[in-house]
Amino acid sequence: MLLNGVNEERIDATDRGLQYGDGVFETIAVVNGEPCLWQRHLKRLRLGCERLGFACPDGSLLLHEARSEIASRLTGVLKIVVTRGAGGRGYRPGSHADPSRILNCSARPEYPKDAAHEGVRAILCSTRLGRNPALGGLKTLNRLEQVLAASEWSDEDIDEGLMCDSEGHLIEGTRSNVFLVRQGNLVTPDLSNCGVAGVMRELVIERAVSRGVRVSVQPISLEELRAAEGVFLTNSIIGIWPVVRIQNWEYELKHQNVDLIRDIMVRGFEF
Amino acid sequence: MLLNGVNEERIDATDRGLQYGDGVFETIAVVNGEPCLWQRHLKRLRLGCERLGFACPDGSLLLHEARSEIASRLTGVLKIVVTRGAGGRGYRPGSHADPSRILNCSARPEYPKDAAHEGVRAILCSTRLGRNPALGGLKTLNRLEQVLAASEWSDEDIDEGLMCDSEGHLIEGTRSNVFLVRQGNLVTPDLSNCGVAGVMRELVIERAVSRGVRVSVQPISLEELRAAEGVFLTNSIIGIWPVVRIQNWEYELKHQNVDLIRDIMVRGFEF
Repeated sequence: MLLNGVNEERIDATDRGLQYGDGVFETIAVVNGEPCLWQRHLKRLRLGCERLGFACPDGSLLLHEARSEIASRLTGVLKIVVTRGAGGRGYRPGSHADPSRILNCSARPEYPKDAAHEGVRAILCSTRLGRNPALGGLKTLNRLEQVLAASEWSDEDIDEGLMCDSEGHLIEGTRSNVFLVRQGNLVTPDLSNCGVAGVMRELVIERAVSRGVRVSVQPISLEELRAAEGVFLTNSIIGIWPVVRIQNWEYELKHQNVDLIRDIMVRGFEF
Repeated sequence: MLLNGVNEERIDATDRGLQYGDGVFETIAVVNGEPCLWQRHLKRLRLGCERLGFACPDGSLLLHEARSEIASRLTGVLKIVVTRGAGGRGYRPGSHADPSRILNCSARPEYPKDAAHEGVRAILCSTRLGRNPALGGLKTLNRLEQVLAASEWSDEDIDEGLMCDSEGHLIEGTRSNVFLVRQGNLVTPDLSNCGVAGVMRELVIERAVSRGVRVSVQPISLEELRAAEGVFLTNSIIGIWPVVRIQNWEYELKHQNVDLIRDIMVRGFEF
């Protein structure tokens, strides 16, 4: 683990990341020894810092540290946490933030075998996402809703839990974004009020559009989810997972437009 | 600072308190060398841990450590953070949590002189609170909404910012609960969906009721706030602060039922 550039496992307990969840993070796939989609992750990290109101650490410094932390690993997961830093008293940030950066590279987790080809099973979580446009789309350190939602199942056959917002709109999985296939086009939830606007989600949208597939970003009801011809999940580590079952709703893989999905995947991206 | 019973300033950076805000905290007034309202704070800490699904550290251990951290201070602020602990991967908590406890006693902050007698000024923050019944009332480490709200003003004449939920109901101050005085009785926001159910709020409700004052816990609109005869704020450190101004709405102290307020204060509690 690299903490502000130093090999170190422990952080000042007054850090606002711990005290208030006052920070953002990225989870980045390491493929062939390099952090995948680096510029996109950096862009979102900067956007998060900007919206929280503190300076993002320098991009070339972060890349240097990322490579140092990845070291000789060929594959893995690199997590980068950036907080507003230590000290200050009370919620109001001091005028001069000294952000902390924590980089940690670990082994790629084991995922269900061949999930990308055979599809995964999901449930609908009862934990909802609160709506707050000030935080919507950001990957902040305030993740208790996801923690509670991920606690809702322990069945190993279930690979993800889908979450709605407090008004009942489908938003995302606990650790993934969700797309519906509808008449060969894609629909994905609007994340203005909550949810994490994933890097892989953005890439899938761009690639779909560039291939002439229409992508609609809009509020989605559970009824629309149920009626979808196909559903798939995305995140930077898993890539794309088709969904074959949500609760007792089944989705046939042939309806998933699997060729489309595979076509819009990042070339060379392992999943 | 006492970290799991040891004098230590640094915490494992994999702690879920930092990674996800997966924990709760208490901010406790120290008066005459003792943590004030200890049993009430402990009760809320336990409730928070229970609702997040991990075991709260033993109460007598926490009290022992609290006194050790307070040491010879007569007054101050004791903050206790309890997280689900280090390690685990991903949002889902492991089956065996090993919670972290962080106790830190610091000097009492400087508050506006004689705020309890002369009243304070507040603004309405534009940052809203997301609604989530799973977290409503708890004092969790997910505090970005308060951080953003507290960043909205820097005028030193403003002592607090009031926050509404995403539907526009008045909920609380960034670091206080709010009460309206209406025809000699009290009205305070329902916190089922968001907000922190403060220890001082609970105490004020109990004391008011025991003195024959009716207290209504209900949704409150900004129009009702504006029309209130008086408004006051509570938290465990400040006690009670009457409000004399919110934006350009003025509240006269004589309407505040100041005698009532002072009567329901904890005897011997400094504010």
